Amino acid sequence: MNLLQQYCETRRVTEGLCRPLEIEDYGLQCMDDVSPPKWHLAHTTWFFETFVLRPELPAYRIFHSRFHELFNSYYLTAGAPLSRSRRGRLSRPTVAEIYAYRRHVDEAMRTLLGDDPQAVSPQAAGVVELGIHHEQQHQELLLMDIKYNFWCNPLRPTYLEPRSASADHSVTVSAPGWVGFASGIREIGDRGERFAFDNEKPRHLQHLESYSLADRPVTCGEFLEFIEAGGYGRPELWLSDGWDAVSRLGWNAPLYWELEGGEWRQYTLREGMRRMDEAEPVCHISYFEADAFARWSGKRLPTEGEWETAANSVVKEEGDVMVGANFLESGELHPRSLNRASGGAASRPGLQKLFGDVWEWTQSAYSAYPGYSPLQGTLGEYNGKFMNNNLVLRGGACVTPGSHLRVSYRNFYRPDSRWHFSGVRLCRNGKNE
Amino acid sequence: MNLLQQYCETRRVTEGLCRPLEIEDYGLQCMDDVSPPKWHLAHTTWFFETFVLRPELPAYRIFHSRFHELFNSYYLTAGAPLSRSRRGRLSRPTVAEIYAYRRHVDEAMRTLLGDDPQAVSPQAAGVVELGIHHEQQHQELLLMDIKYNFWCNPLRPTYLEPRSASADHSVTVSAPGWVGFASGIREIGDRGERFAFDNEKPRHLQHLESYSLADRPVTCGEFLEFIEAGGYGRPELWLSDGWDAVSRLGWNAPLYWELEGGEWRQYTLREGMRRMDEAEPVCHISYFEADAFARWSGKRLPTEGEWETAANSVVKEEGDVMVGANFLESGELHPRSLNRASGGAASRPGLQKLFGDVWEWTQSAYSAYPGYSPLQGTLGEYNGKFMNNNLVLRGGACVTPGSHLRVSYRNFYRPDSRWHFSGVRLCRNGKNE
Amino acid sequence: MNLLQQYCETRRVTEGLCRPLEIEDYGLQCMDDVSPPKWHLAHTTWFFETFVLRPELPAYRIFHSRFHELFNSYYLTAGAPLSRSRRGRLSRPTVAEIYAYRRHVDEAMRTLLGDDPQAVSPQAAGVVELGIHHEQQHQELLLMDIKYNFWCNPLRPTYLEPRSASADHSVTVSAPGWVGFASGIREIGDRGERFAFDNEKPRHLQHLESYSLADRPVTCGEFLEFIEAGGYGRPELWLSDGWDAVSRLGWNAPLYWELEGGEWRQYTLREGMRRMDEAEPVCHISYFEADAFARWSGKRLPTEGEWETAANSVVKEEGDVMVGANFLESGELHPRSLNRASGGAASRPGLQKLFGDVWEWTQSAYSAYPGYSPLQGTLGEYNGKFMNNNLVLRGGACVTPGSHLRVSYRNFYRPDSRWHFSGVRLCRNGKNE
Amino acid sequence: MNLLQQYCETRRVTEGLCRPLEIEDYGLQCMDDVSPPKWHLAHTTWFFETFVLRPELPAYRIFHSRFHELFNSYYLTAGAPLSRSRRGRLSRPTVAEIYAYRRHVDEAMRTLLGDDPQAVSPQAAGVVELGIHHEQQHQELLLMDIKYNFWCNPLRPTYLEPRSASADHSVTVSAPGWVGFASGIREIGDRGERFAFDNEKPRHLQHLESYSLADRPVTCGEFLEFIEAGGYGRPELWLSDGWDAVSRLGWNAPLYWELEGGEWRQYTLREGMRRMDEAEPVCHISYFEADAFARWSGKRLPTEGEWETAANSVVKEEGDVMVGANFLESGELHPRSLNRASGGAASRPGLQKLFGDVWEWTQSAYSAYPGYSPLQGTLGEYNGKFMNNNLVLRGGACVTPGSHLRVSYRNFYRPDSRWHFSGVRLCRNGKNE
Repeated sequence: MNLLQQYCETRRVTEGLCRPLEIEDYGLQCMDDVSPPKWHLAHTTWFFETFVLRPELPAYRIFHSRFHELFNSYYLTAGAPLSRSRRGRLSRPTVAEIYAYRRHVDEAMRTLLGDDPQAVSPQAAGVVELGIHHEQQHQELLLMDIKYNFWCNPLRPTYLEPRSASADHSVTVSAPGWVGFASGIREIGDRGERFAFDNEKPRHLQHLESYSLADRPVTCGEFLEFIEAGGYGRPELWLSDGWDAVSRLGWNAPLYWELEGGEWRQYTLREGMRRMDEAEPVCHISYFEADAFARWSGKRLPTEGEWETAANSVVKEEGDVMVGANFLESGELHPRSLNRASGGAASRPGLQKLFGDVWEWTQSAYSAYPGYSPLQGTLGEYNGKFMNNNLVLRGGACVTPGSHLRVSYRNFYRPDSRWHFSGVRLCRNGKNE
Repeated sequence: MNLLQQYCETRRVTEGLCRPLEIEDYGLQCMDDVSPPKWHLAHTTWFFETFVLRPELPAYRIFHSRFHELFNSYYLTAGAPLSRSRRGRLSRPTVAEIYAYRRHVDEAMRTLLGDDPQAVSPQAAGVVELGIHHEQQHQELLLMDIKYNFWCNPLRPTYLEPRSASADHSVTVSAPGWVGFASGIREIGDRGERFAFDNEKPRHLQHLESYSLADRPVTCGEFLEFIEAGGYGRPELWLSDGWDAVSRLGWNAPLYWELEGGEWRQYTLREGMRRMDEAEPVCHISYFEADAFARWSGKRLPTEGEWETAANSVVKEEGDVMVGANFLESGELHPRSLNRASGGAASRPGLQKLFGDVWEWTQSAYSAYPGYSPLQGTLGEYNGKFMNNNLVLRGGACVTPGSHLRVSYRNFYRPDSRWHFSGVRLCRNGKNE
Repeated sequence: MNLLQQYCETRRVTEGLCRPLEIEDYGLQCMDDVSPPKWHLAHTTWFFETFVLRPELPAYRIFHSRFHELFNSYYLTAGAPLSRSRRGRLSRPTVAEIYAYRRHVDEAMRTLLGDDPQAVSPQAAGVVELGIHHEQQHQELLLMDIKYNFWCNPLRPTYLEPRSASADHSVTVSAPGWVGFASGIREIGDRGERFAFDNEKPRHLQHLESYSLADRPVTCGEFLEFIEAGGYGRPELWLSDGWDAVSRLGWNAPLYWELEGGEWRQYTLREGMRRMDEAEPVCHISYFEADAFARWSGKRLPTEGEWETAANSVVKEEGDVMVGANFLESGELHPRSLNRASGGAASRPGLQKLFGDVWEWTQSAYSAYPGYSPLQGTLGEYNGKFMNNNLVLRGGACVTPGSHLRVSYRNFYRPDSRWHFSGVRLCRNGKNE
Repeated sequence: MNLLQQYCETRRVTEGLCRPLEIEDYGLQCMDDVSPPKWHLAHTTWFFETFVLRPELPAYRIFHSRFHELFNSYYLTAGAPLSRSRRGRLSRPTVAEIYAYRRHVDEAMRTLLGDDPQAVSPQAAGVVELGIHHEQQHQELLLMDIKYNFWCNPLRPTYLEPRSASADHSVTVSAPGWVGFASGIREIGDRGERFAFDNEKPRHLQHLESYSLADRPVTCGEFLEFIEAGGYGRPELWLSDGWDAVSRLGWNAPLYWELEGGEWRQYTLREGMRRMDEAEPVCHISYFEADAFARWSGKRLPTEGEWETAANSVVKEEGDVMVGANFLESGELHPRSLNRASGGAASRPGLQKLFGDVWEWTQSAYSAYPGYSPLQGTLGEYNGKFMNNNLVLRGGACVTPGSHLRVSYRNFYRPDSRWHFSGVRLCRNGKNE
């Protein structure tokens, strides 16, 4: 696909994700971390307008003089944006006007990119590519946010009709195996094969001690054992801030889990509230919960270097990450049970579900790689300014576009946040399998 | 009008107020005190369903089993309502479903009330009448809330097209005159001529010292003098809590006023932001501001007994309150300038604008009249449970249905709240005019 | 006693109240409403320095140039005071320095007042008298604050050694009788016999309907019945804000009550934690609790006019209020059980314990009497600026100096505050006894 | 020194730090992060009582049954401690009682350790050593907390009398030089020469790219340039959370700096408020400020591996760190100006002031070293549970006991905290000097 085709395809997918929504759903913001769907549609458009069309297309006519202020997210050097917590206050512009804004920008982008691939400078093409990946990030956010918003409604509406038969709850999952890795100097970071964010660069060396990684993520059934062993009530299992969060927020299970008549149920995008499936990877847990679970298990979380080294061992070409994996493209929108057959590199016996299904928390603080330099200008705010109090997650989830993922991809969240599709894979010292 | 006609007319007016809204506007809740328009439409309907149809119409079929929980406001004895601050989280039921709910209840009400006026017990008729007045209260709330929600949007949309020519800013208003009242025993409270809320009863005696009331409300121009005299910066003019509010909230003018290039502008429902008119009654001020202004003027606020005694002197029959007054029915949705001609009892030279235009703060805490008894059962929560930290306002405003108002009508708000259409009329001790 | 003697006596009493304290206790401030004992000692002294010595004694030398800022309470027109919540941050000046400050001011006061009673202007004498009553208010606050501070310490130290034998828990108290009062015009407010605060003035007329007042306050035993009947869990018994307070603060009993092994215990100044005595007047309840209890009892709280009219019926001269009553002077520092013999006007069979023991909540909002005018100048901030969201309490408590009390005395607190010694006496409509 | 001597010496130093305090100062807690001096005295004692005497000395008699609850800091597995923010509420036990507690425990420790060094198990000796280092940490905290508490008092008392002549403000400091380090595998972590905390272990390999470190910390004068260049007003210089902190807390200079009549002044322990000395290392800045300053300078903060590698290049034996350095032992209690002569390894021309004066922020998140395992049992809570949202600081400060410091020592604080003596040393990529 050329750049215009990629652009159009990405824009098409975003709008497809909004198709099941009622107009009323487009404006919802049920917590500060969440943005209304309408805002995602507009903000991703504003990105192309601001960073591509205004500098690159002289004939471009701004769609609306105030959208700059409304749909800027956090680029403070580009002007004072609307405070994040107020995004849900915008009943106007209407949904129809937002779609008109998208049409207007799409048309201009087609003008810019269409005629002659050579007409666009490499730098401009780079920003377009960045904008495409930016919009893919918002595709995932759209689904995360819709799930959270809908769950807040006591009626618990479903986003889409269920697709497949319900889980087979009779099967049990056997204990995880361990895949060992020797100590030594390893290379991590951007492989240079395709687009990568600034925070994945530069590729660099890291010394690792020997370690072993579980061959699959932790399941809901295993996490239930932690709950039933009183894990949420034992301070010695938790980081100090984690214990504060448990006490303050009253956590007693992952987000979206609810105990109803002695049975654990969970909220899903396709089936609303339904029985929890013990064979699924546990999902929607905070770093604190992942860390406490690991401590309770006598294990630990991997570092991102360990995770990436393991991933490098199974992925020959970047395209491998998608083979057989449960990404957004599968349309399932929920982690796939370990009982369901799957194939391909991502699920080879050695390291199942390394990609897709759930993001895996690492113990690595999100910080700059040695030699890191942020993008120039306003886009320099893209990644670097979040480098404190975030932990790295790896591997993508069932709501991540597979074409967006890479081995070196670094996602990051606060240790107490849970509305992303996050799970955990255990690690331990030493290579003895 | 018989009861059914009154019912239908009230329902029609409510929906008319929503006609200018986009679907996106129906779900907005920009502060906790505000409810989304959709919620007002549903809650007033829930009132009839819960307190009339369920007990009175055996064949009545509940529209939706969960609406009880979603659209109950604060009747705790009727079950745990959705927390007030979460009303804006309900994208579902959709606007169309809410209107269907209204149709469903309207039809049942027509069945109940229609055939034979005698078929309904006096007690049931009383609850229907209460429900009608309840819905009229929500008509005013709808406009208050829409105004606040729209003002929060940086685009400052207007609710309706402007109707009349802009104000004539060249005219000045002369100083207020004073109308004197002798000391003695006065009767205040429900006159018994028409429907009244429990909190207006029983009619009772009160001893008043002699006093004089200004013959018109304070104008924007007069309030501007207070601002320019540094009124917002002089603690000795304020109640202790008022000074806290000024400091904490950064007040420096009434709500909806903004200084732009040296000119004061204000947000209005029909014209959006427009130049402030000095001849208009000042509006959207808190009790604290009304009280500070009065102290700065060397005057005071009237008690509600004083206000009502004055009103009794001009209103022979309750119907008089509407004559010539600027209520919701006028469609102006903003206080009318003192320069504009007006007639009728409510604006007789002696006491102009006693009714309509702006609610007038009194210095009276909202509390029970001697011998007060609340309604029976769940409806007992209607008024009595708010009898602390609220102050009484009298006379109705330009967004109050005139047919809803009475001489004895007691409105009440927190001393720091400002989104209602509240103004101030001065009072002083002694009868010497 | 002449003015100097009164001054010296008041100062002596204040310091006597601090005698049982350790130096470490003088700086404690365990909630914002509470002030450290040291601060009370200094602030009452600052009052005389600021409002008497500086204007009246030309030779007076300021003790410390910064004390003005540290020990001003809330007289904003006298300069920016230290924020209330920071009073506990002042380890310096030390306790010894504060006592030196008192000595310094006492000496100057002796110079001013001593030689010749005529030497002081009537206005200055009035301010000294105000200062004496101000210091008496702080004597009560000292004990309230010490009790609260000590109770916050897990060790629960006692303030003084116990004095009397423990309560006789075997006796039961019979149901209250009712004393009826006819309707009519009554006079309330300052009788003009002795000093009174501005807020008790002017004496004025009030029309009352007939009513009956309980002949004694509600007991702990009766309040326990309310608790055991689930009173703290029934929203229909509470004002809306009261129910919020119950939910937010987790109230399930009066302040200082604790359930220990099935037995209710309460914290007292003289005995620390000890068994609750059912025959004592219930104490340390908020307005919300008093109001909910009254509603549960099918009764109501009296208005302050009703209370004062009843008090006028038993008090011929102001001095009567102290006869046989349990005020600070008794040194008991806790409400006296109804089982213990007592005599005098205040405990005549008709209306027991109207004065002393516990302050009695009225349903009257604290507001200006008709014709009220505050003191001139900075002292005008003394009373008037608290006239919103406070309710009036009457009659004084076991920590109030009896010489400070009057029939017309108006105490006031927020409806959710409980650290004062507040109880409740029931009232009902109609005179039938 | 044998263990008992070390114990006694440490206890003596702690009490010496409290000697200048008034009894009133011992109970102060002016923010949640701060503990009252009294509490430090008791808590360090509780540590020996709980972890040494109770398990090791059978005859030991607990001093007070409730002290366990009062003076436990955060060892949740040792029972529910008093909430941190309430430490300032304890007027009792008195200061005298706390000192008696110290005497009691000291005597028992003398019994335990005194007679025969062999009598104590190596494990017990390890815990005693831990307790000594724990108390040394609290020596630094004592001074940090006293400084903060005193600064909160508008009178700004000084802790000790000034010792030396005031700074010579006429000298200027020349630009820093750069010391280069080649890339390669380096060893960091506990050298095994003396006591070390669990978080410094195990010693392990790290791959470093080449880098250069400034030969001295940033000065107040340099930081002033940042201020004057508008650094606190330029969002692009700040981490996202840092910008939030600047906006929310109104930062415009380091903690303890105040602009007075156009001159910057700063609060110090020995001289109270005094003129800021541009030649001193800047102190009391947050991570966010250190990071923003580095970005503005076109440099970056070092990682802790880079810092330690540099330190390893100058420190042959651990004892070297103290030579000529400004630690607690110097008694200056303030960073020493760069203009003042100093000698020794720590201030060799290459890398001045690497130890002592100010803690130096690194860009490294505080996390576990590869192979880290926490202490066993309750002491496992000592370090590990704070491994999120803290950044590592290195090198010790003028209030750190020099005997407590090591090359591998890892201090850590939240990125927004400033009451520790923290400064910044710049780093840059590449070895070219």
